[in-house]
Amino acid sequence: MNVLTGIAASRGIAIAKAYRLVEPDLTFEKKTVSDPTAEVDRLQGALDTSKQELELIKNQAEAELGKDKADIFEAHLLVLSDPELIASIEDKINTEKVNAEQALKDTTDMFITMFEQMDNEYMRERAADIRDVTKRVLSHLLGVEIVNPSMISEEVVVVAEDLTPSDTAQLNRKFVKGFTTNIGGRTSHSAIMARSLEIPAVVGTKEATKKINNGDMLIVDGLQGEIHINPSTEVLAEYKEKQQQFEAEKAELAKLVNEKSVSADGHQVELAANIGTPDDLEGVLHNGAEAVGLYRTEFLYMGRTELPTEEEQFESYKKVLEGMEGKAVVVRTLDIGGDKNLPYLDLPEEMNPFLGFRAIRLCLEQQDIFRTQLRALLRASAYGNLKIMFPMIATLDEFREAKQILEQEKQKLVSEGISVAEHIETGIMVEIPSTAVMADLFAKEVDFFSIGTNDLIQYTMAADRMNERVSYLYQPYSPAILRLVKMVIDAAHKEGKWAGMCGEMAGDELAIPLLLGLGLDEFSMSATSILRARAQIAKLSKQEMENLAKEAIQMSNTADVLEAMKKINQ
Amino acid sequence: MNVLTGIAASRGIAIAKAYRLVEPDLTFEKKTVSDPTAEVDRLQGALDTSKQELELIKNQAEAELGKDKADIFEAHLLVLSDPELIASIEDKINTEKVNAEQALKDTTDMFITMFEQMDNEYMRERAADIRDVTKRVLSHLLGVEIVNPSMISEEVVVVAEDLTPSDTAQLNRKFVKGFTTNIGGRTSHSAIMARSLEIPAVVGTKEATKKINNGDMLIVDGLQGEIHINPSTEVLAEYKEKQQQFEAEKAELAKLVNEKSVSADGHQVELAANIGTPDDLEGVLHNGAEAVGLYRTEFLYMGRTELPTEEEQFESYKKVLEGMEGKAVVVRTLDIGGDKNLPYLDLPEEMNPFLGFRAIRLCLEQQDIFRTQLRALLRASAYGNLKIMFPMIATLDEFREAKQILEQEKQKLVSEGISVAEHIETGIMVEIPSTAVMADLFAKEVDFFSIGTNDLIQYTMAADRMNERVSYLYQPYSPAILRLVKMVIDAAHKEGKWAGMCGEMAGDELAIPLLLGLGLDEFSMSATSILRARAQIAKLSKQEMENLAKEAIQMSNTADVLEAMKKINQ
Repeated sequence: MNVLTGIAASRGIAIAKAYRLVEPDLTFEKKTVSDPTAEVDRLQGALDTSKQELELIKNQAEAELGKDKADIFEAHLLVLSDPELIASIEDKINTEKVNAEQALKDTTDMFITMFEQMDNEYMRERAADIRDVTKRVLSHLLGVEIVNPSMISEEVVVVAEDLTPSDTAQLNRKFVKGFTTNIGGRTSHSAIMARSLEIPAVVGTKEATKKINNGDMLIVDGLQGEIHINPSTEVLAEYKEKQQQFEAEKAELAKLVNEKSVSADGHQVELAANIGTPDDLEGVLHNGAEAVGLYRTEFLYMGRTELPTEEEQFESYKKVLEGMEGKAVVVRTLDIGGDKNLPYLDLPEEMNPFLGFRAIRLCLEQQDIFRTQLRALLRASAYGNLKIMFPMIATLDEFREAKQILEQEKQKLVSEGISVAEHIETGIMVEIPSTAVMADLFAKEVDFFSIGTNDLIQYTMAADRMNERVSYLYQPYSPAILRLVKMVIDAAHKEGKWAGMCGEMAGDELAIPLLLGLGLDEFSMSATSILRARAQIAKLSKQEMENLAKEAIQMSNTADVLEAMKKINQ
Repeated sequence: MNVLTGIAASRGIAIAKAYRLVEPDLTFEKKTVSDPTAEVDRLQGALDTSKQELELIKNQAEAELGKDKADIFEAHLLVLSDPELIASIEDKINTEKVNAEQALKDTTDMFITMFEQMDNEYMRERAADIRDVTKRVLSHLLGVEIVNPSMISEEVVVVAEDLTPSDTAQLNRKFVKGFTTNIGGRTSHSAIMARSLEIPAVVGTKEATKKINNGDMLIVDGLQGEIHINPSTEVLAEYKEKQQQFEAEKAELAKLVNEKSVSADGHQVELAANIGTPDDLEGVLHNGAEAVGLYRTEFLYMGRTELPTEEEQFESYKKVLEGMEGKAVVVRTLDIGGDKNLPYLDLPEEMNPFLGFRAIRLCLEQQDIFRTQLRALLRASAYGNLKIMFPMIATLDEFREAKQILEQEKQKLVSEGISVAEHIETGIMVEIPSTAVMADLFAKEVDFFSIGTNDLIQYTMAADRMNERVSYLYQPYSPAILRLVKMVIDAAHKEGKWAGMCGEMAGDELAIPLLLGLGLDEFSMSATSILRARAQIAKLSKQEMENLAKEAIQMSNTADVLEAMKKINQ
């Protein structure tokens, strides 16, 4: 039996045939041909087959994934119909008497270089199209199979070195039952994608693409982090039962979709979802989120060549607000800088980007960017229950300035006759130690807090969360972090405000009992974690968790806290 | 009248002639000579003059600065006596018929390249010697004056683009009455050096070297940050009076050298000095420090090609402990990494070095380095009142591990029969927010705290203190920082321990009243700030400052705190 181990990146059990999403070998040798006419015919054959194939893929993609996703294939078809390009290749075969592969490659390389050098994003995208089409035609000339993930028509487990966003965009989700990749960790793109699609995944197996052939029967155990290759009948039966068990539990959890989130002793909290784009809404509703606790607006600004317009932003915010049908949507204003850069903003290189010019710091200086976003948000506020949250607030002065700018934009819109929600809650991310320490004074002026644990931990411990040499100091369960969390929650409650958390800790099974005990009001997490968290909370006594939390903040190190927490979850 | 303004980097008034410490113009053209013998004679003349000059400088340096500083000139003399080198130059003149300048340059360039490529530090230093000597001989061939700072024999103000450590090492401090430089800020090397030498300095004037000629009469106003060039008789008289006033105040302060540091209402604190090397001791004693509050041991490790031996370290520590004659010496263990690198440790590049692998983090992993230092410290402990302090402690686990290693080394030494002080206080730097937040639990295990404000501020505010774009967030007087400082002091007192501060804030006139009010026990600062601080504290009421501090930590922003502090200092 052949078992690979890796990182359990998305829960569940998948059983299906392997589909290798691996680049084919398209190498060839330059040859002189004696019969150019026959060679031109060979080229025409490959072009025709490619066209037919693309038509097929396009139609299938349109039907399964929507017109948006199919557009790319339309662009590829246009390349194949470009008379200038085709004539150039044929000409090369006839005059230089080289094989079709070489003529194709030489010609398209020239076009690609030309387009790439143009100072125009549209033209540069054409270069990518020509590159893709060249691969497809080459595959037919060479008789090599090319992967067409959108053509998948039976249930498969995708096996890849890694999955890029464009890979996953082309996957027909209906048939993809699981993922396994060679590289990546729990927070890699493929892992996040798998969780958001709710399909089991095991990442970081190191050698999945080496050990697995197309058509191998695979079991993806996303609970234990194992891949079984061509398992025995006994193992297969065992896993089918495990799968049924998992599905039964999932079905049980699904019953909680419209329930409130209430502890065993009757304390109610709110379970919200973190989202990046309006596309995430389906998962949010399907998983019973009571609100969007964090809408990361960065994605609107990324993968572009210029800032999004007010109108583009307005449309996105409106879509989310309407989609949530009156449930709260906490939108975080632009959090760029640090490890997230926007090339078109031309930000300076920094020695310590995590301690640098980012988020609200940038927005308060480059106010045109900030004001455009606030206007879009204010306009969208008429369509739902909007709350605005500022990231990386370190001082009350910063919050006051941000709020003042918001008020100015609101007044401008009102005087323009544009409708804006009467009251919009305005809060802050608490992710900088100074803000946690000053939470009592902040609580008098903000409407809510949302604790961003990822950053709060790294600043409080002075340890870069991306740096492996100091990763031992990235301790979410450090009593120091718990004390800061408690300071923030207590300060909020004293002023009648609410405190949430939108860092990874909020969705962590181990942390939830402690956070409940500390009095957290809102837990914002991946949508797919919500139902499990709701079930977990239903079994916990708030009173008991309060006692646990009281003990934990008096413990001297993380090991002691972890031990106490593990006892609770047993 | 000609006045330059810059940054007041070291207090006091200096009046003396300008001495330009500026690189001379040693450019020349290659020429063909018709009489090589005459050219060789010209070379010999320049060599002889250089030799005589170097003998003179060497003797003067030996008498004024000590044998150590004179060694470099001995090395230069050796270069001038190298028969192989001289013969090569003469040969070049004779065979190639080039001028002496060209023959000298070509020959020495070859030797320099050869030595520089050797994998041996000693040989690479020879390359530097040859380069220096070449400049000197060239200056005599060209009839250009070269600067010989160690030859200064009258009172001067040194005017330079910037001052490097090697420049200042060669200065005859007896005659240097002031500095002014084009570049640099309050924390540049030249500014620190000026303060440690207690001579007035104005740095960052931008154009001192452009506007000032050798021999110009200069007034350096290190109080206001002004340089007056060739002032009028009236201005000169005015400044002579200011100078006398300053000296009188200084003499008044000097009377406090052996006094205790006591507030107007009888509360005693300790004023200690920060030092980098045993050489700083003279200033420490001369300025009435009651202890060394921070001995930065990094300098022992810097400017070398390998780690210092246990013996070398022992000698340095012993020298400081003996020099302090029983007064406390707080030695900070190695704080390397972050912005301070040691090339021979081959540390990895980090994306956020300030949040990276540094100080105790490195010492706990590379224990051989740490244990060697601890052994040297333990052995030195027999010679005075040693206290050991660990930097960058983020968790109690780290402190416990460091302390355990210290205990192990102590037991080893004892079992080897080497004498070690019976009790050595062991404390930590509080410079990471988590440690301030956990100070109550730390206080049960450490003997003392020393608050490192420079780092504590940057982590608490999540703002790189070297990054100008976020420098507005580097706020020592933020109520958040004051609250953390208070937490640390209160926690120490509750357990009967003491709390000090060794960041720049501790010596800041504006901060001292507040720190007194917060209950700080020990203020460690530049030695030259101590007497002024002692006089300031003598005028303050601890009781009143306590009230000020209580108000300050309830203020919502730094501006309010600053306003309250400025009122106190009026």
